[in-house]
Amino acid sequence: MNFVLKGNICYSKTLQELEIKENSYLICEGGISKGVFSKIPDKYIGLPVTDYSDNIIIPGLCDLHIHAPQYTFRGLGMNLQLLDWLNTHTFVEESRYDDLDYADKAYSAFVEDLKLSAVTRASIFATLHTSATILLMEKLEKTGLITMVGKVNMDRNSSDILCEESPQKSYENTKKWIEEVIGKFKNTTPIITPRFIPTCTDELLTKLKELQKTYKLPVQSHLSESKKEIEWVKELYPDSESYGDAYNQFGLFGGKDTPTIMAHCVWSKDSEEDLLKNQDVYVAHCPQSNTNLSSGIAPIRRFLKRGIHIGLGSDVAAGCHTSIFRAMSDAIQVSKLYWRLVDQEDEPLTENEAFYLGTLGGGSFFGKVGSFDEGYEFDAIVIDDSSLATPYKSPQKLTIEDRLAKIIYFHNDNSIRGKYVRGNKII
Amino acid sequence: MNFVLKGNICYSKTLQELEIKENSYLICEGGISKGVFSKIPDKYIGLPVTDYSDNIIIPGLCDLHIHAPQYTFRGLGMNLQLLDWLNTHTFVEESRYDDLDYADKAYSAFVEDLKLSAVTRASIFATLHTSATILLMEKLEKTGLITMVGKVNMDRNSSDILCEESPQKSYENTKKWIEEVIGKFKNTTPIITPRFIPTCTDELLTKLKELQKTYKLPVQSHLSESKKEIEWVKELYPDSESYGDAYNQFGLFGGKDTPTIMAHCVWSKDSEEDLLKNQDVYVAHCPQSNTNLSSGIAPIRRFLKRGIHIGLGSDVAAGCHTSIFRAMSDAIQVSKLYWRLVDQEDEPLTENEAFYLGTLGGGSFFGKVGSFDEGYEFDAIVIDDSSLATPYKSPQKLTIEDRLAKIIYFHNDNSIRGKYVRGNKII
Repeated sequence: MNFVLKGNICYSKTLQELEIKENSYLICEGGISKGVFSKIPDKYIGLPVTDYSDNIIIPGLCDLHIHAPQYTFRGLGMNLQLLDWLNTHTFVEESRYDDLDYADKAYSAFVEDLKLSAVTRASIFATLHTSATILLMEKLEKTGLITMVGKVNMDRNSSDILCEESPQKSYENTKKWIEEVIGKFKNTTPIITPRFIPTCTDELLTKLKELQKTYKLPVQSHLSESKKEIEWVKELYPDSESYGDAYNQFGLFGGKDTPTIMAHCVWSKDSEEDLLKNQDVYVAHCPQSNTNLSSGIAPIRRFLKRGIHIGLGSDVAAGCHTSIFRAMSDAIQVSKLYWRLVDQEDEPLTENEAFYLGTLGGGSFFGKVGSFDEGYEFDAIVIDDSSLATPYKSPQKLTIEDRLAKIIYFHNDNSIRGKYVRGNKII
Repeated sequence: MNFVLKGNICYSKTLQELEIKENSYLICEGGISKGVFSKIPDKYIGLPVTDYSDNIIIPGLCDLHIHAPQYTFRGLGMNLQLLDWLNTHTFVEESRYDDLDYADKAYSAFVEDLKLSAVTRASIFATLHTSATILLMEKLEKTGLITMVGKVNMDRNSSDILCEESPQKSYENTKKWIEEVIGKFKNTTPIITPRFIPTCTDELLTKLKELQKTYKLPVQSHLSESKKEIEWVKELYPDSESYGDAYNQFGLFGGKDTPTIMAHCVWSKDSEEDLLKNQDVYVAHCPQSNTNLSSGIAPIRRFLKRGIHIGLGSDVAAGCHTSIFRAMSDAIQVSKLYWRLVDQEDEPLTENEAFYLGTLGGGSFFGKVGSFDEGYEFDAIVIDDSSLATPYKSPQKLTIEDRLAKIIYFHNDNSIRGKYVRGNKII
């Protein structure tokens, strides 16, 4: 766990500030970064050095929103919008996870892909099935990745084939699941996961808060993704000020002891933005998903200006691609269209800003994660970008920043040469 | 040149109608398709059969707009808008093609990539340099691809390092180039290529029309890509009804004997749309480029409703990716955002429609191209999609249409098992 990596080191210090240290040394001690140096400080001389020569070393990427059971049908049903897509594809596929043999095969494929990707941390939705969720967690634990996994709760307005029989039963199963997994794993922890307001009764939400408090767990769910969904929530909770407020009434919307991720926030309005900000909720920005389901474009620049926490999510399978580099380029691209078509006050995201969102932006939900400054947990990815859209030895020398941009647009997982999570080498 | 391919055959008959023939036979005679059959008709029995078993066979894809010299800097400068991007990156890089050694290396890489891609036909911008353009054409000819290539014309408002010295000189060089290449190649033909209105004097445009008429050549250029560019054209031609009208005044905007491709058309207005329609101009829709340069979203559904011809363009390097499958998924995605954010009368494109645009839609610019109906030129791609986002043998059998959707979202060139152009096997 004590070692040195050498290469071109690149990470975000803030949204604006990208730190680039060419041909430098990154020190890991006890799973923690001791910083980046142009020569190895005396006290670390003697540690084993892995020389990645001209490769680029960046913090591991964080996926704040992904549905493991949806991995199997990426790219299907993309002509539908959210509520139809849920009923036609998602609920049908998720219902299969009642069958542990099926779950075993499908989750194995998902977990293997995640392991080989540039992601080191993820917050994951499973299904409502307790056994399959535990199986998923066991598989994830073996990879060395650090993940939060949620057994999903849904006890109304769901499909016949995918609905818990009562709030009490949902509560009991969730409690049983938490007790089985809490403390069992080193890297894999439970997160309270009401699917979304429309599929959870008041009684269930109340009980989930109770579990959240008892076991001191974080929370994840969906918020203000599509217009129809928001109207539906308004019908269900006519007195709520916003969709976010509906969660908040049950204590499931951030605040001091309730770390929370809310995916999407495409159509959050002023008072909801205030809540996101004041309660320190993390927005999982899922640009490709929001595009594929014709939901819209989340106003990320505005959120950033307001100081709202933001990370990126692949949102597989509403997003087709698991790659968080792809999420970065999607985030840049939709922010340009937002600027052009919606609000010219909200300048497009730059590549450096998108890189921040996919590393430190989302990483901070997991603690001191997403940077190489001293004291951060040591999650690192080593990328050999020599074959990425670099057709020949150009006379034009690319800067590390140029090369990072190319990685954002062209990365594929085959170019990963090393992957470290909390100092453990997993690739 | 006479043979049979067996596999799952899939092509567009019209924008709406996707023809799917599982486990069928596609007949090629003299480079022309004789149609698709569930068993080989008597008169073709005895022709050699290549059995591609469960692979999918589709028409070759058409790229209506790509800049060969920009291939080298894909992914760079993406934080700029059109006019700044041209001055900072594009003109600098294109000026290098004065050096034939450089052109040789850079164009070799471009051509090799295009050969290995799913594209069988392309309309290509070179640079203003005659020798390098001829070199590019020689390289393309060797691949077996069928392409139109333009020596670019630009004699004003360009960079010091990339501007022809006078309209007369530009004309002379263009004439010399045409005479050298016309009839020289089987598959590679010249296309008249004024860069865009702002960089071409009236005198040059007049002379280009003369060349177009003399040699009966098609025309390609850029139209209504970004707002600043349109304002600029309006300043240059205050009396023109539209940007398109400015081309039209010089006879370079479609019509019976002037087949024309105009890239972009993001901000075409009513009278320009009328011109596009009435003059049978092809729109090269370049969704990723229009996003990357923050230009906007072209109203493709509206164009389709008006019966305007549309194909897809990668527009490398304003588009990062050479893949026309990526252009299909980009086209779908931006059409969803257009529908959501701009005009709910214009429904999003479906996958089948995007597939049409990338095959028959653009293909028809090249003649009877882009379909497997009898009489079409035999351009075909064979795709082994078994590893594309299909994590394991799912119990759910995917339809060919599902598999085509997955190809659109996940294709990479490694999955191409065969490539035929006018009946010649080139991969």
